[in-house]
Amino acid sequence: MRRVGIIGASYTKFGERFDVNMQELAWEAFSDAIKEANIEKDAIDYFVLSNMGGWSSESLPAVIVSEGLGINPKGSVRVEAACASGSSAVKLAHDIVASGQANVVLALGIEKMRESPTKTVVEYIGRAGNFMWEFENFGLTFPGYYALYATAYMSKYSVKEEDLCEVAVKNHYYGSFNEKAQFRNKITVEKCMSSPYVAWPLKLYDCSPITDGAAAVLIASEDFIKEHKSETAWISGIGYATGTANLSKRDDFTGLEAAKRAALQAYARAGLDPEKPASQLDLAEVHDCFTIAEVMAYEDLGFAKKGEGIKLVKEKQTYKGGLIPVNLDGGLKAKGHPIGATGESMIAELYHQLLGKVKGERQTDIKKGRALAHNVGGTGHYAYVTVLSLEKGGVA
Amino acid sequence: MRRVGIIGASYTKFGERFDVNMQELAWEAFSDAIKEANIEKDAIDYFVLSNMGGWSSESLPAVIVSEGLGINPKGSVRVEAACASGSSAVKLAHDIVASGQANVVLALGIEKMRESPTKTVVEYIGRAGNFMWEFENFGLTFPGYYALYATAYMSKYSVKEEDLCEVAVKNHYYGSFNEKAQFRNKITVEKCMSSPYVAWPLKLYDCSPITDGAAAVLIASEDFIKEHKSETAWISGIGYATGTANLSKRDDFTGLEAAKRAALQAYARAGLDPEKPASQLDLAEVHDCFTIAEVMAYEDLGFAKKGEGIKLVKEKQTYKGGLIPVNLDGGLKAKGHPIGATGESMIAELYHQLLGKVKGERQTDIKKGRALAHNVGGTGHYAYVTVLSLEKGGVA
Repeated sequence: MRRVGIIGASYTKFGERFDVNMQELAWEAFSDAIKEANIEKDAIDYFVLSNMGGWSSESLPAVIVSEGLGINPKGSVRVEAACASGSSAVKLAHDIVASGQANVVLALGIEKMRESPTKTVVEYIGRAGNFMWEFENFGLTFPGYYALYATAYMSKYSVKEEDLCEVAVKNHYYGSFNEKAQFRNKITVEKCMSSPYVAWPLKLYDCSPITDGAAAVLIASEDFIKEHKSETAWISGIGYATGTANLSKRDDFTGLEAAKRAALQAYARAGLDPEKPASQLDLAEVHDCFTIAEVMAYEDLGFAKKGEGIKLVKEKQTYKGGLIPVNLDGGLKAKGHPIGATGESMIAELYHQLLGKVKGERQTDIKKGRALAHNVGGTGHYAYVTVLSLEKGGVA
Repeated sequence: MRRVGIIGASYTKFGERFDVNMQELAWEAFSDAIKEANIEKDAIDYFVLSNMGGWSSESLPAVIVSEGLGINPKGSVRVEAACASGSSAVKLAHDIVASGQANVVLALGIEKMRESPTKTVVEYIGRAGNFMWEFENFGLTFPGYYALYATAYMSKYSVKEEDLCEVAVKNHYYGSFNEKAQFRNKITVEKCMSSPYVAWPLKLYDCSPITDGAAAVLIASEDFIKEHKSETAWISGIGYATGTANLSKRDDFTGLEAAKRAALQAYARAGLDPEKPASQLDLAEVHDCFTIAEVMAYEDLGFAKKGEGIKLVKEKQTYKGGLIPVNLDGGLKAKGHPIGATGESMIAELYHQLLGKVKGERQTDIKKGRALAHNVGGTGHYAYVTVLSLEKGGVA
């Protein structure tokens, strides 16, 4: 199989983007990525658009965006894996290049969620759990789902609301240095604790926001990379798993089974020791749609033992200089969470971190040359884990 | 690159399927395909669901179906390329296997369109053109779009409404022998001509119906096929292209540029002579969403010269025994058109035809060992062309 790497990546300013339409928003991420890769857009052989959609009236977002970017007549497709859509696009783009069917594939994620009223967004996303049973019968929406996980976790491991707020404090801290983040205000545990409840025990500052944004990742074959002398982060392993549709069919509410499986698969493919992955990585992006989700991610990824995830953030082990810095871009919590673009934005961040191209306070030391993105769809319905490396590692 | 083949395939009874829910409908196609392939479902490494959606309230159809089939925890994704979604799923499944990331991938398409009222379906599909311009400003829906193509074609090539009806007569004729077809009634040109206008010059019998259905294709690597001694049709070439979102940006309204490009790419990869593809194929499935679409497909695929496509059907060259039999399953017109499942159902049909497994009147003689599926999304917004062969041809 051919080695596959990333040669350019970018994400737009996240937040409320009524200033641009879908094509213009896509262009912002695309034009930066293609400039960084130093290629002509004619070099792109295929286009994978990740988008959950449902907010706008465009039923063919891949075609609309393709026309806007001037990529057509090249082939295209839209993919969706709920909030993990972006990572699924990167996985498919990887495989298309690895198969030899293309030399360069664009994975671009986009979402314009703020076109819909907040209440509609919350209801629509809520249907992404299990509509017929959990949404219709119990009115569960996503803050409610993750509140279930939080209460299960808190009751089993004597973790307090204040502890969860520590995750929000960290991610807002790093978001404050990221000019593309939706929120750039630093917060305190007190501020988080005094914010209104969305679904007990989760408060406003425990929840990621509703976001517009786009993110682009250009993925190329080893031959193309050699020829173009591109600055490359290699894709060295991707893992993926699907959870049950019904939460009632799950055994454990203090972690996400699909994320654990995806991590083990990614580690095996990237040649990482599953017993101590944190010590082999320079940094990670994890799916902190809610503060409890970041704590569970630490454990599902094997960065901490079961029940000890919260210690990592309290002891600043997931800050720069700690065991493994996590979400140095502000995470979903502060950078924002434009569903279809979140995965590509994580991978764009890691690409720049690994190459030392992040400006200012957020750049971390790169010693091991490896980084990981953990992207979850639904409440563990989908999980994708992607490992990047500066060394030409291979996907086994 | 590894060779990739199809080892089992099936589609459900198409039509109004209020008798089953989404999981049950998927199961019908899946259980037949897996039985035919003679494998355990544990052998499936990854699942690609093609689905346009928007009719039901399930926002995570891949997860719902995955749970229903018992494929989770294996990784999954939903893909969409409008009416070409099914072929895009087969393309991605092919590439995933070819890349070495999986040995067996399930591509399953599903749509339950009849859950929505007809008016809603027509409006929703209409948005799949270019919403902001053509739908909002001119009220164009799909019968209207293809009526534009039909009038352009009729005016340029002096083709009559009666001629277009010949396509419907052929496809209803073959649909009458297909127990899974939505419509099994044979029709005459007179009957077609006396049916009410939907969008002049297209009448009811020029239009494909609104359909529920599912279709499954199991795709495997050469190694897996060798080990399991599977009855195989190899995927020997796939081509794909994207058209402009705006029809107003197109030069020609008597053919689909994207389909032409996709065909040439597929021919190059499969080693077919683009000057005489029909003589190298035993049969084809083409995207006859409207009768005019089948005529344009003949020409876009190079089966007939420009303006002479209609002669093929009038001279019965696309019936069994002719130059190249087309849509021996009844086509979208009579078999039905459950958007996300249409592509896989075409490929399932070709798989069975190539292996001589179609019962009764519909089975055609297999002499060249090659067959082609032409699947269009939107009005030429997407095009996917897939060539299957009994010989182990390779995707270049």
